[in-house]
Amino acid sequence: MGAHETITQFDKMLENLDRWLAAGVTCAERKKVPPDLLVGSRLALDQYELVRQVQAACDQAKFAAAYLSGQKAPAHPDTEKTVAEMRARIATCRAYLKSIAAAQYAGAAERRVAPPWLNGQWMRGDRYLAQVAIPNFYFHVVTAYAILRHNGVELGKMDYVGGLPLGEG
Amino acid sequence: MGAHETITQFDKMLENLDRWLAAGVTCAERKKVPPDLLVGSRLALDQYELVRQVQAACDQAKFAAAYLSGQKAPAHPDTEKTVAEMRARIATCRAYLKSIAAAQYAGAAERRVAPPWLNGQWMRGDRYLAQVAIPNFYFHVVTAYAILRHNGVELGKMDYVGGLPLGEG
Repeated sequence: MGAHETITQFDKMLENLDRWLAAGVTCAERKKVPPDLLVGSRLALDQYELVRQVQAACDQAKFAAAYLSGQKAPAHPDTEKTVAEMRARIATCRAYLKSIAAAQYAGAAERRVAPPWLNGQWMRGDRYLAQVAIPNFYFHVVTAYAILRHNGVELGKMDYVGGLPLGEG
Repeated sequence: MGAHETITQFDKMLENLDRWLAAGVTCAERKKVPPDLLVGSRLALDQYELVRQVQAACDQAKFAAAYLSGQKAPAHPDTEKTVAEMRARIATCRAYLKSIAAAQYAGAAERRVAPPWLNGQWMRGDRYLAQVAIPNFYFHVVTAYAILRHNGVELGKMDYVGGLPLGEG
């Protein structure tokens, strides 16, 4: 499983996340409360609220794709204030992920990745993917899911993983 | 990033999970409540409680390791009722993961994986890892983390990801 396959999986999970947000809107409408109440919902006072979880999930995917394909990541400012804007942010991120061809990830495993927060230090691309990008991407996606479930949005395991490629050689 | 690297990362996350549970005990003791109150804690009525999240995280790692190395997974019955027993379950799972050598994962990407819940259908090993094992493993690990954070256990992002291999060629 290389960088391109991982980014493709991130894209699939962002598509799932978008559907959970749509389910959140449906749930809020049924309960006759404004759907955008969900935007600021959180599980602990000192943990990011839903909108920040969505922004961070998008950024983990975006930066992994950029670093591992040797590009400068596009700026996606954190300005979202509604569920509709969160869904648009996901669409923007997914369009960027899809803009990178599989061949652009050639040599990704050995690439030196030096994000600003490492203050000049670096990690090998494969280790960055396994130990930074994947755990952090899923951290934010699953926490977003947990916030929605905690608010009573009806989601289940199949909504989480999405469809599976069965019996494909 | 192959099967062995992924299982090694699962092992690292299970080590982190074990530390979060230890932090949960410390937190409960400071608040003068029984630490085992955490065992049944959950974020939604129809979502697994902490003990089931820990068991499921262990099982995702165990089954991925077994399927991708062509072994029958050992039985680890879901009998835990205390934080101490949950931590012992993690230790049992980690010992199994460590018992499998990197060479035993040869050919894992092309292996046909047919877990019982696929009812006779199968998935390629690399797709099973990317689309089933990794998302589901992180689902349970992050939900366990969220349950602890929701209960006021003091954990932060560094506790989540653990140490990183910087500047290693």
